[in-house]
Amino acid sequence: MSSPVPSPMVSLLTRSRESTRSLSLSSLAQRNAALEAVAREIEARGSDILKANRLDQEAAQRAGMSTPLLDRLILDETRLRKMLQSLREVIELPDPLGTSRELGTRPNGLRIQRRRIPLGVLAIIYEARPNVTVEASSLAIKSGNAIVLRGGKEALLSNHALSAAVRSGLEKSGLPIDCVQLIEDTDRERVTELLGAVGYVDLAIPRGGPELMKMVDAYARVPVIRHGLGITHLFLDASANATMASDIVFNSKVQQPGVCNALETLLVHRSLLTTELWRPLAERLVTQGNVELRVDEEVAQSLRSHRILHRAAQDDDWDTEFMALTLAVRTVGSLDEALNQIAAHGSHHTASIVTEDSAHAERFLQSVDAACVLWNASTRFNDGNELGLGAEIGISTTKMHAFGPMGLNELTAEKFVVYGAGQVRS
Amino acid sequence: MSSPVPSPMVSLLTRSRESTRSLSLSSLAQRNAALEAVAREIEARGSDILKANRLDQEAAQRAGMSTPLLDRLILDETRLRKMLQSLREVIELPDPLGTSRELGTRPNGLRIQRRRIPLGVLAIIYEARPNVTVEASSLAIKSGNAIVLRGGKEALLSNHALSAAVRSGLEKSGLPIDCVQLIEDTDRERVTELLGAVGYVDLAIPRGGPELMKMVDAYARVPVIRHGLGITHLFLDASANATMASDIVFNSKVQQPGVCNALETLLVHRSLLTTELWRPLAERLVTQGNVELRVDEEVAQSLRSHRILHRAAQDDDWDTEFMALTLAVRTVGSLDEALNQIAAHGSHHTASIVTEDSAHAERFLQSVDAACVLWNASTRFNDGNELGLGAEIGISTTKMHAFGPMGLNELTAEKFVVYGAGQVRS
Repeated sequence: MSSPVPSPMVSLLTRSRESTRSLSLSSLAQRNAALEAVAREIEARGSDILKANRLDQEAAQRAGMSTPLLDRLILDETRLRKMLQSLREVIELPDPLGTSRELGTRPNGLRIQRRRIPLGVLAIIYEARPNVTVEASSLAIKSGNAIVLRGGKEALLSNHALSAAVRSGLEKSGLPIDCVQLIEDTDRERVTELLGAVGYVDLAIPRGGPELMKMVDAYARVPVIRHGLGITHLFLDASANATMASDIVFNSKVQQPGVCNALETLLVHRSLLTTELWRPLAERLVTQGNVELRVDEEVAQSLRSHRILHRAAQDDDWDTEFMALTLAVRTVGSLDEALNQIAAHGSHHTASIVTEDSAHAERFLQSVDAACVLWNASTRFNDGNELGLGAEIGISTTKMHAFGPMGLNELTAEKFVVYGAGQVRS
Repeated sequence: MSSPVPSPMVSLLTRSRESTRSLSLSSLAQRNAALEAVAREIEARGSDILKANRLDQEAAQRAGMSTPLLDRLILDETRLRKMLQSLREVIELPDPLGTSRELGTRPNGLRIQRRRIPLGVLAIIYEARPNVTVEASSLAIKSGNAIVLRGGKEALLSNHALSAAVRSGLEKSGLPIDCVQLIEDTDRERVTELLGAVGYVDLAIPRGGPELMKMVDAYARVPVIRHGLGITHLFLDASANATMASDIVFNSKVQQPGVCNALETLLVHRSLLTTELWRPLAERLVTQGNVELRVDEEVAQSLRSHRILHRAAQDDDWDTEFMALTLAVRTVGSLDEALNQIAAHGSHHTASIVTEDSAHAERFLQSVDAACVLWNASTRFNDGNELGLGAEIGISTTKMHAFGPMGLNELTAEKFVVYGAGQVRS
């Protein structure tokens, strides 16, 4: 358990570890009562929280933060209400620790059980959105885990106000306040220390852009959930229904372009380019959706004749998560070509097929190596709430531990519990 | 998917990745037929395999390999038969990919399913035991994963002969032979490359001593199952049954001292030291079991009067995996003291309590943070076969993905499969 973590971090993480001993023995009723106390504290401190957030906003504006980032930073009455609503939804979720499984009795009489336990100490590293502070804390408390929060420096005052409310709720309900700790030192060294804290941190959850992911690659020694790029694909098969295709592509790309399950690369079956499906869809994307199309030569030809705005795709467009109203469009001649394209350029995140051919759909669903594969549905459904998990703490793009949206259950593990009567091994 | 892996390794790992595409679409019948073909190849090549192994043994003897290591290296008729028996047991195990779970239909009509999929490409790094070559390959094939084998250099000829038999079986059954590849280059650089092969290796399974674990800490960038130290504890509570205590402690320590679930630290309730439980047990360990006792002062006093051989424990004995007939023994005054000692010195691997007090037992089972906790049973039962999982590929001591013995199921993940009818997100 020794680790080269410097001492202020050691004492913080040791407090986290110590808090897990009573937390892991707490009942569901205690954990839910703590969450309700947290909700009340946030309600009571609403105006202070909004004031702290306004100071963060002002500083961010002075520093010239871009509009989309600034939008993520903002808290207002509506968002605060939504935060409280999410918190109370977590209270309603079933106990993730309440599901021991009996594996039966062995021939020698040993009774074997797998019992759900918390992971221990979580560390979440995130950026501008202060609501993550409450969301992540509530999922941690509900699942019996301690959590260390490292938010973006642009949201420091908001996160301070929110985490203070959470800790006060914990205190009032009798759970150890150090279950939730915020790292207020904004030095990036603290992030590398968290990522290297072997024996102190059981799971690190980095949520951020390519720069953070590079730090993870370089410094992570503790288990990490990789919340990787969403190079999301959608394949319009030859038999696609035109209305469905148009609605699903439009929704996948336009509804919220800055998120990981938004569509980035559209694969169109060659036979569709000259049909009444493709032209109106392309027009809708460009005029109604304001989407910039980056297309291969065949698609370009189909658009030129109708004077639909487009650009020629560059090689790296097929590997880019645009996070913007930009869509790469490529022609494929068959389902297999589409599968090859996704295998070569997808990021194991989300892929959808629109087709009326159920055999094609089944091959697609079975073959594509992605956390979420969809048939005749928008890529935007790859989301914990939409898939029915309740709140999510991230989307994993590796297959270890969790693949796809991670809910409460993914914040637990199982230990083996063995009931004997003196058995020894022969 | 880019990675700084040099080119011979890139082409090997690319072959592994490509082999997974047809492997992941194979049926259980095909995978089982391949395993049966592998078994027949091993049978047919038995004398060649034993010959290769004798050459490995001779080289190891010339190099002065220690007897326990040499024993791990040896293959003979009996061990070959056992290897084939294990292989055929894997054939009998249920299909780990056959268990899709319906999560139900969402209010918007989307049908959500979680479908079992292989992890992809496994890399196992192991030491002298050549039977791991066949064991790991068979678990990989059964679970639809490709595997890259990096065995110890002392077993190279044996591993070469065994993996050639495995690949020949794959070929004869029509599955891609590159599902199983052996790295024959014994340079340690290959290990660091495997550990760093982000995008190529989905899971690395290092099985070895502290030196290998240091390499993992320094170089692992891919997901790794940490097969950590087994600093295994057993607590003899005040109410322990004397016969049971003696048999369980003796079996836990003596039956196979060189493995991870063998007992390392015995915690004895103070009240037992002067009873008819402790003296005969200590005597049995020393005389019948040849165990060296390293004890605290209170235990020493109890032994001195009966002239039972012992040594004073040093500080680091409480944190040592002896892997030998050595046992650290410490006095505790209560269940809580035992729990504190295990929290401070255990390695989250295995812990057992011997007690007649069921409330004490339940507190112990709930509180101890270990992959396997046992009541009135030998620590030696923390083993995939003994717990009913079938063959195991390792024992995880982190809670991510798997905690404890990993069987076939732990070599799979689940993806979300969504059946729609044109749904978009609002």
